[in-house]
Amino acid sequence: MAKVESQSRQRFRRVEKIFTDAVFIAHLGIKLDKVGKGWCETSLDVSGAHAQQHGFVHAGVLTTLADHSCGGAAKAAVGAKEDVITVEFKINFLRPARGQRLSARGQTLRAGKNVVVTESEVYSHEGGGKLLVAKCLSTLVVIPQR
Amino acid sequence: MAKVESQSRQRFRRVEKIFTDAVFIAHLGIKLDKVGKGWCETSLDVSGAHAQQHGFVHAGVLTTLADHSCGGAAKAAVGAKEDVITVEFKINFLRPARGQRLSARGQTLRAGKNVVVTESEVYSHEGGGKLLVAKCLSTLVVIPQR
Amino acid sequence: MAKVESQSRQRFRRVEKIFTDAVFIAHLGIKLDKVGKGWCETSLDVSGAHAQQHGFVHAGVLTTLADHSCGGAAKAAVGAKEDVITVEFKINFLRPARGQRLSARGQTLRAGKNVVVTESEVYSHEGGGKLLVAKCLSTLVVIPQR
Amino acid sequence: MAKVESQSRQRFRRVEKIFTDAVFIAHLGIKLDKVGKGWCETSLDVSGAHAQQHGFVHAGVLTTLADHSCGGAAKAAVGAKEDVITVEFKINFLRPARGQRLSARGQTLRAGKNVVVTESEVYSHEGGGKLLVAKCLSTLVVIPQR
Repeated sequence: MAKVESQSRQRFRRVEKIFTDAVFIAHLGIKLDKVGKGWCETSLDVSGAHAQQHGFVHAGVLTTLADHSCGGAAKAAVGAKEDVITVEFKINFLRPARGQRLSARGQTLRAGKNVVVTESEVYSHEGGGKLLVAKCLSTLVVIPQR
Repeated sequence: MAKVESQSRQRFRRVEKIFTDAVFIAHLGIKLDKVGKGWCETSLDVSGAHAQQHGFVHAGVLTTLADHSCGGAAKAAVGAKEDVITVEFKINFLRPARGQRLSARGQTLRAGKNVVVTESEVYSHEGGGKLLVAKCLSTLVVIPQR
Repeated sequence: MAKVESQSRQRFRRVEKIFTDAVFIAHLGIKLDKVGKGWCETSLDVSGAHAQQHGFVHAGVLTTLADHSCGGAAKAAVGAKEDVITVEFKINFLRPARGQRLSARGQTLRAGKNVVVTESEVYSHEGGGKLLVAKCLSTLVVIPQR
Repeated sequence: MAKVESQSRQRFRRVEKIFTDAVFIAHLGIKLDKVGKGWCETSLDVSGAHAQQHGFVHAGVLTTLADHSCGGAAKAAVGAKEDVITVEFKINFLRPARGQRLSARGQTLRAGKNVVVTESEVYSHEGGGKLLVAKCLSTLVVIPQR
């Protein structure tokens, strides 16, 4: 049991590095909330700096959250000595995001030896519930951990 | 001739609004350099805040530049009383971007009555030349200008 | 109750037309199995004509099944006087498909007045179970039914 | 000079195998017309079997042509002992294709050691000219030639 917890914590920390090491991400305020084998959950408290011209959350913020949640899910799928880099992603914007809080879940669809395919969903917390505001599908390649 | 110049300038200003109105974009430092019928050229001076963990330009910066150049190209394709919103895009990251300056060109592939399809290419200026570092393909819908 | 059944049947027939009207699709042998509000399930018995060079099911067959399941889901989301046309899709191939039977499920993520976003998953039935072999994310626009 | 011609011919034959080996492709009638380092040109004479319900060329035909032109371009970019497999692609449909002849050009954007990124454009020959009807952006991975 202790060993299992330890492995989970190690995985959490490996995934967390993706969110803390990059200056560009760290200042956005994205938080890593939960990590499991091949998936992660993230969230973000929306501030005025995240707005676009009509007052909604900017698509770039939704994209960064979606992309990093895909990256986190892939990182949570590979081994401790492996790292992942994003080759490409596609994102659909489904609705304007008006909430003061966003959350996302990244999920690995297939973790191969060289390629990992993941998807993520971004939710806006508003009106007492949460609305799906973006969907992302991403391809990463596995590289040795530096 | 004066009228033509005036139309060009009006188009430039309509496209420019996309880059200046959004708080999230304005602070990144993306500049609109040139605009023509259905296309635009943009650039960005890279700073330390744009870095990812290995010191390259963060993919989120490349994505934001690519996405907005697609948006600018679409805005430069539609009429003065029309606006565009991004439905989706796909982006491929081709190489690490190490340059101190990025530039991009957005190009409309098809401007329909309701849907505009655009692509953009992002270049990193390094080693005395420029390298293609990202390619983006995006779909927007046309809405009335608010 | 009779009326509800009747509406379900009418929806099934509206979706079915997408699969039977196109010569290119009809001869592939794709079957529409189930339809609900905004989703559909489809299947295909694999034949020798569907093979690629290594004996797996050709990516073009997986793509056609994925694309049409997205189209079916969108058609199942819009009203009786509306039709949908595919603007774009992205598909990831996750594993070689070796099964003698494929199935797919298309699901609407967001049905707006003008734009419908759907996703689909394709499964290969092999080894007593089913494996996810492709994932697709697609954008369609709503047009009046001709 | 003889050696250069020979290399060109060998490359053509290596790319050609992608179009002839797959049963699903061969019967569509796609032809490989020209091959260079990292690119290829293809074409297709449209027949009644390629139609969709409104009499235009079916999106599945455009997709197959676009996808295989991307694959051909990637195959024309890698070495003689390497093969490529498609990981994913995204395609935008720009206009209905009404022509009796389609042509496409696949172009490699980046040929890395493990990943090749390509794009392709599909044209419909009609009204005395050619119209861009689809644009595709695709990611492939490099594997050893079997």
